[in-house]
Amino acid sequence: MGRKLNKNKIINDPVLGFISLPYESLYDLLQHPYIQRLTRIKQLGLSLLVYPGNTHTRFIHSLGAMHLTAEALRQLKDKGNDITDEEAEATLQAILLHDIGHGPFSHALENIIVEKLQHEEITLIMMNKINKEYGGMLDLAIKIFKNEYHKKYFHQLISSQLDMDRLDYLIRDSFFSGVREGSIGAERIIKMLNVKDDKLVIEAKGIYSAENFLIARRLMYWQVYLHKTTVSAEHMLKSILIRAKELSLSGKKLYASTALQYFISNRISGETFRNSQEALEKFSFLDDSDVISARKEWSQCDDKILSYLCKSLINRRLFKVKTGETENEFDAFCDEIKKKYKALGYSDDEIEYLYSCGEVKSRTYDPSNDKIQIIEKDGNTTEISDASDLLNTNTVTRKTSKYYLCYAQVFEENIEAN
Amino acid sequence: MGRKLNKNKIINDPVLGFISLPYESLYDLLQHPYIQRLTRIKQLGLSLLVYPGNTHTRFIHSLGAMHLTAEALRQLKDKGNDITDEEAEATLQAILLHDIGHGPFSHALENIIVEKLQHEEITLIMMNKINKEYGGMLDLAIKIFKNEYHKKYFHQLISSQLDMDRLDYLIRDSFFSGVREGSIGAERIIKMLNVKDDKLVIEAKGIYSAENFLIARRLMYWQVYLHKTTVSAEHMLKSILIRAKELSLSGKKLYASTALQYFISNRISGETFRNSQEALEKFSFLDDSDVISARKEWSQCDDKILSYLCKSLINRRLFKVKTGETENEFDAFCDEIKKKYKALGYSDDEIEYLYSCGEVKSRTYDPSNDKIQIIEKDGNTTEISDASDLLNTNTVTRKTSKYYLCYAQVFEENIEAN
Amino acid sequence: MGRKLNKNKIINDPVLGFISLPYESLYDLLQHPYIQRLTRIKQLGLSLLVYPGNTHTRFIHSLGAMHLTAEALRQLKDKGNDITDEEAEATLQAILLHDIGHGPFSHALENIIVEKLQHEEITLIMMNKINKEYGGMLDLAIKIFKNEYHKKYFHQLISSQLDMDRLDYLIRDSFFSGVREGSIGAERIIKMLNVKDDKLVIEAKGIYSAENFLIARRLMYWQVYLHKTTVSAEHMLKSILIRAKELSLSGKKLYASTALQYFISNRISGETFRNSQEALEKFSFLDDSDVISARKEWSQCDDKILSYLCKSLINRRLFKVKTGETENEFDAFCDEIKKKYKALGYSDDEIEYLYSCGEVKSRTYDPSNDKIQIIEKDGNTTEISDASDLLNTNTVTRKTSKYYLCYAQVFEENIEAN
Amino acid sequence: MGRKLNKNKIINDPVLGFISLPYESLYDLLQHPYIQRLTRIKQLGLSLLVYPGNTHTRFIHSLGAMHLTAEALRQLKDKGNDITDEEAEATLQAILLHDIGHGPFSHALENIIVEKLQHEEITLIMMNKINKEYGGMLDLAIKIFKNEYHKKYFHQLISSQLDMDRLDYLIRDSFFSGVREGSIGAERIIKMLNVKDDKLVIEAKGIYSAENFLIARRLMYWQVYLHKTTVSAEHMLKSILIRAKELSLSGKKLYASTALQYFISNRISGETFRNSQEALEKFSFLDDSDVISARKEWSQCDDKILSYLCKSLINRRLFKVKTGETENEFDAFCDEIKKKYKALGYSDDEIEYLYSCGEVKSRTYDPSNDKIQIIEKDGNTTEISDASDLLNTNTVTRKTSKYYLCYAQVFEENIEAN
Repeated sequence: MGRKLNKNKIINDPVLGFISLPYESLYDLLQHPYIQRLTRIKQLGLSLLVYPGNTHTRFIHSLGAMHLTAEALRQLKDKGNDITDEEAEATLQAILLHDIGHGPFSHALENIIVEKLQHEEITLIMMNKINKEYGGMLDLAIKIFKNEYHKKYFHQLISSQLDMDRLDYLIRDSFFSGVREGSIGAERIIKMLNVKDDKLVIEAKGIYSAENFLIARRLMYWQVYLHKTTVSAEHMLKSILIRAKELSLSGKKLYASTALQYFISNRISGETFRNSQEALEKFSFLDDSDVISARKEWSQCDDKILSYLCKSLINRRLFKVKTGETENEFDAFCDEIKKKYKALGYSDDEIEYLYSCGEVKSRTYDPSNDKIQIIEKDGNTTEISDASDLLNTNTVTRKTSKYYLCYAQVFEENIEAN
Repeated sequence: MGRKLNKNKIINDPVLGFISLPYESLYDLLQHPYIQRLTRIKQLGLSLLVYPGNTHTRFIHSLGAMHLTAEALRQLKDKGNDITDEEAEATLQAILLHDIGHGPFSHALENIIVEKLQHEEITLIMMNKINKEYGGMLDLAIKIFKNEYHKKYFHQLISSQLDMDRLDYLIRDSFFSGVREGSIGAERIIKMLNVKDDKLVIEAKGIYSAENFLIARRLMYWQVYLHKTTVSAEHMLKSILIRAKELSLSGKKLYASTALQYFISNRISGETFRNSQEALEKFSFLDDSDVISARKEWSQCDDKILSYLCKSLINRRLFKVKTGETENEFDAFCDEIKKKYKALGYSDDEIEYLYSCGEVKSRTYDPSNDKIQIIEKDGNTTEISDASDLLNTNTVTRKTSKYYLCYAQVFEENIEAN
Repeated sequence: MGRKLNKNKIINDPVLGFISLPYESLYDLLQHPYIQRLTRIKQLGLSLLVYPGNTHTRFIHSLGAMHLTAEALRQLKDKGNDITDEEAEATLQAILLHDIGHGPFSHALENIIVEKLQHEEITLIMMNKINKEYGGMLDLAIKIFKNEYHKKYFHQLISSQLDMDRLDYLIRDSFFSGVREGSIGAERIIKMLNVKDDKLVIEAKGIYSAENFLIARRLMYWQVYLHKTTVSAEHMLKSILIRAKELSLSGKKLYASTALQYFISNRISGETFRNSQEALEKFSFLDDSDVISARKEWSQCDDKILSYLCKSLINRRLFKVKTGETENEFDAFCDEIKKKYKALGYSDDEIEYLYSCGEVKSRTYDPSNDKIQIIEKDGNTTEISDASDLLNTNTVTRKTSKYYLCYAQVFEENIEAN
Repeated sequence: MGRKLNKNKIINDPVLGFISLPYESLYDLLQHPYIQRLTRIKQLGLSLLVYPGNTHTRFIHSLGAMHLTAEALRQLKDKGNDITDEEAEATLQAILLHDIGHGPFSHALENIIVEKLQHEEITLIMMNKINKEYGGMLDLAIKIFKNEYHKKYFHQLISSQLDMDRLDYLIRDSFFSGVREGSIGAERIIKMLNVKDDKLVIEAKGIYSAENFLIARRLMYWQVYLHKTTVSAEHMLKSILIRAKELSLSGKKLYASTALQYFISNRISGETFRNSQEALEKFSFLDDSDVISARKEWSQCDDKILSYLCKSLINRRLFKVKTGETENEFDAFCDEIKKKYKALGYSDDEIEYLYSCGEVKSRTYDPSNDKIQIIEKDGNTTEISDASDLLNTNTVTRKTSKYYLCYAQVFEENIEAN
């Protein structure tokens, strides 16, 4: 009988099937508290209020992205590209850890919990911490993550306009939300990858798959990620945290877990975060549950704005949303709302929490950024927006904005639909 | 253009497709805090430690079970059974609400948070509460739920050995865990349903589907629900709550949300619960987040048992598990363990938290209970275990037990596999 | 027990699930030889040489299109549009029969077997025949099929740029070919349908689904329908039939089934077909098997061109294909090929069978044709290419062409890839 | 850029995803006329009359079985079993070719076209033929196919009670028929495979998957393969061939392709087949199309039995079926039928074609045959029916029979359901 080489490392993923961990170090990382924490942070935050299947976590996404990266590396190797075991292992380490810097509710609370600090930088800080614990095990992974390695394509697999992160989240979010038309053929795209001059390229016959990926991403943006009801709920959650922080900073004692307490009672900037062990330690303790649990407590507190916001969000009496095409079209309506609230006795300061105008935007493909290159049979490369007639228009490459107004509905019934 | 009859009530379910709410009252119920709370209670608790896709909630399960029930009712109607709109609406109300009595982590903490009270009874208490709020809107639903309505098949759709609850959870848990072989043909079973003498029957040609359902359920029990790693994690969670409660009752002040605090600082029995508005109110505030958040705080507390258990569970250093076929096979090993712990300085009382022997059991089909009846073309009915050669054995109808021992691994590495 | 209302009419479709036949007349039609014949005509002809799963038939596609139409009608009715049972039944009859005029290998041999006659007209001739047999049962169905009924939307469901025919074939062809990224959310599109001024409209929030449908169709065209290997194989099959007909008309006796014999020994024009019972009768006997079986016999015949073409196609030694962007880019290469063949001893007439230049084209959306209308909440309608920024470009609305050259490879190995 | 190692060998399979051909020789075999012929032989013959999606071919099944075998070999290698490239290649060759000996409509016409010769033996004859053409390339493959190689597990992967052939056809037939509950977790079973003493074993924790496989197979037998309508249609097809052969042998000239003509005008025994190049050559030209095309011609011939049978089958007016539990229960009914036919003027000889009694049987698992062995962690093996409580009964291991009577319905309408 065959001897088992090592630990049994197969994980069931409903989206991609069985996921293996090809290197021991990946198994060790998977057990690390920083990545176990991602089992408690949902990938799409409040999206489950619209798409109730969207309860999947950043943990399973990270596993999936790692799995697709492993397949891509195998593909590139089979095509004759020289990839050492060290490079492969480091790339997989980096993608497995790429999201550890996310906080509770990910993007929705980014820059509110820790001010002016993107999750990518937090990821890097945390990777460095792990690296120290493991005596430099992540040296190469960090180099690749920071795009300081000379073979640029490893970084591109982790972070670019057609990286394994995006491939996984599109398939996964489409799967869990039940929006089947967002599904893409990741397997086909991966089969089409190759390397030229140390950069990723897509073989010419894969152009329809690449187009399809960009269009599916566009659909998912408007249909799921920027769904107006989710936008409204996320706005409410942001307001809740901002209000709680405002109250705490002004001395009011609010219920919160130790970790959350730390971030609402102090104004933690990127500067502080980078230099404070305490901030990092507290942050690594935070997850969705702290916010969800606090939200319920705060719904009973005596600040009428905070309790109103919390109660409304918990019981899904969401702010009503209007969407529009131009920036100022809600001006008149806003004035009316403010008057109405004023008449109800709210102060100017309070009213700021009861409505919000904003912009959501999405860009299908940004050719000014890291380019997607198509390689012809003769070895020449063309940028995808030149090679594709579909993408060869500023529609797809320019940012598209929608404007929205969301406002508390004190009397009105909230009616919801996808 | 056609006028829309009413509110747009379509919900995306990744498992069953679009779910509609055929009656206005269902939409109202969906907005009720009691059912919104189920968006914060996972269907399978800690199973995500083994199957990371298992993050789906009791909320989406309730929607799914309602959807299958609606299809079953339509099927029965198409076959000429007389079903009034009132009966259909009440049945859908009842199934939509059938799980509202679940607490955080569902079965794992049942009888620990509220002592000696099954979730079904809590459901009923909560249904009565809602019914009062809505002026008797649920009168018939409650009658059906309690099996006091003369047409027994409505109750059977909600609760029997082949009910829509089980159909939904099998499909759903199979879907999210990625254990594809647990999938069943719910649509086919539903097409085979009919009614005889006010009871559900399955048409004879549906017997293979019914068998398949029972065997798939058996597989899911051993492969997913009673997976030894999940059993171990659930045991740890139970111990955590029991320890926290022990400490709280003895006067120690532990961090907890107001609602959770109530249940660990008081011994709430079924008796109390039935008579106390406060208990119900607190309970309806509890969800998974309170436990998850508290677990983290307690991992930092000064009770070494509680902090050890919490730390271990959070960072997935789970108790090691041995499984066996007979009740006493671990006796010698247990003695050894206890000695070892004692040598490490733990007291007898503490040691009780560091290991556990137990039994898990599952029964594929219980003919002594509510029977599954097969109807032949001639109108005669036979009990399924008589009609099916596969099920006609005590293997399937007797309870199967496995015995397990799980114990803290102070030094050993935890190795995991599905 | 409920009495079964009528015949059990449930059919398993791997793509759409269970399909029911809501009217008795549909069941009768399903048994008619004209539609049973579609069980022997593949939907995608020779595509299986590239995508081996593509063996599905026009029969199952017709069932699927009928099923989607039934769902669309239910949806429109639920939105308050007045649809009588007669109208619904007729629309379902028409869609069920919409493809009966297809001959063996569908589009590939269209205009070769019967000259200058589109399959739509043959469908109509056959529908009239059935209608006579059934004493006028299809009167309304035919009116709708011919777009002579005042409520235009019934016809639009059967034939327009967003009809149930296209919805079904896209989902189905994507499913069987395994090109997952061609999948669309038919259910979502159907939910978004409504009627204004007797015409189909799509509700504004369905615009992303409609875009996705058009883009997925574009992908399927280039990835599957017009795959260069399929184009090559279809060209060979055409040449085989043309050669066989040429030989037969010049007096050579070739093996063929009686029905196929009729069409290769006579030049049957649309004119003849419309007036000849014999032509119709022979045609209704033809299916893929006649051509596949004859092809094998002809591979042994003494005409070297015909036998060469047949042998090559049967054993998958397909013509080599070059694709290009401009019409004349193969001119020089063609001259070379011709010289080469000439040197091998082929006559000018024979050489015509050994290579071919041609054009394949696809248009994503044609606004000059039957328009897709988007309806805003205020009831105003806009044409989709005005409403959608993605489609608002001539890329999507103009025809895209590719040019190809395929030629016999006498010595070269044929290498294949998707 | 990485150089492509060799031919692009990726095939889209809707069931298993992308299929690669890991060895050049497999690509060559795929182009061989003997295996290309399988693109024209359906896996499930007439099953499409009940499950219209069942049009998949033996070709795609062979590819799928090869793919699963490749995965199993990789798995076994990863577990430390010593497998040379030669062994792997030969095993894949053997599984790819395992079905080339099937004739038109596979099992239905086995022993009728060639008398007393199983398709396995024909496969072997054809493999030897290819082997000669390729100068011994298949020497090892043939040894493995014949179970003459000392490492028995390679043969077991191709042919045993849990081989890759069965795994593929179960998944595939379930997929195309739309009977989802027949789906199994092939990936999980494959992960559980190992080798002990040169034989395949399943790791103990895979026992539920193995049970599930056996039970799913049982379901597919009764729900799909032995569906009474398919049984009836296959009986008709057999009768057609037997009648045509009877007529041809007695000197009547019937239309048929050259290859089919050979087999109906001569009584080709196994003996003849083994020794005649002509028989093999003709056989390798036969596929479904010859029978389908002939069937139509014969429906117009002047033998009233043959034309009646053909007409009925083509237009789906199938023999009516009764099923029963005991062998003789139809005796009285048979007598009645015979009298009725006699009264209608049929001769005794003719009447034999108008009805049939028979038995269909299926055995879930046969422990007397090649055993499925379960291996415990301690390395001990147990036969599965001892290890599994579910299978530990004679229900599963004994043959189950059903008896049927099918008979021509001259006046009655045929009503169909799954």
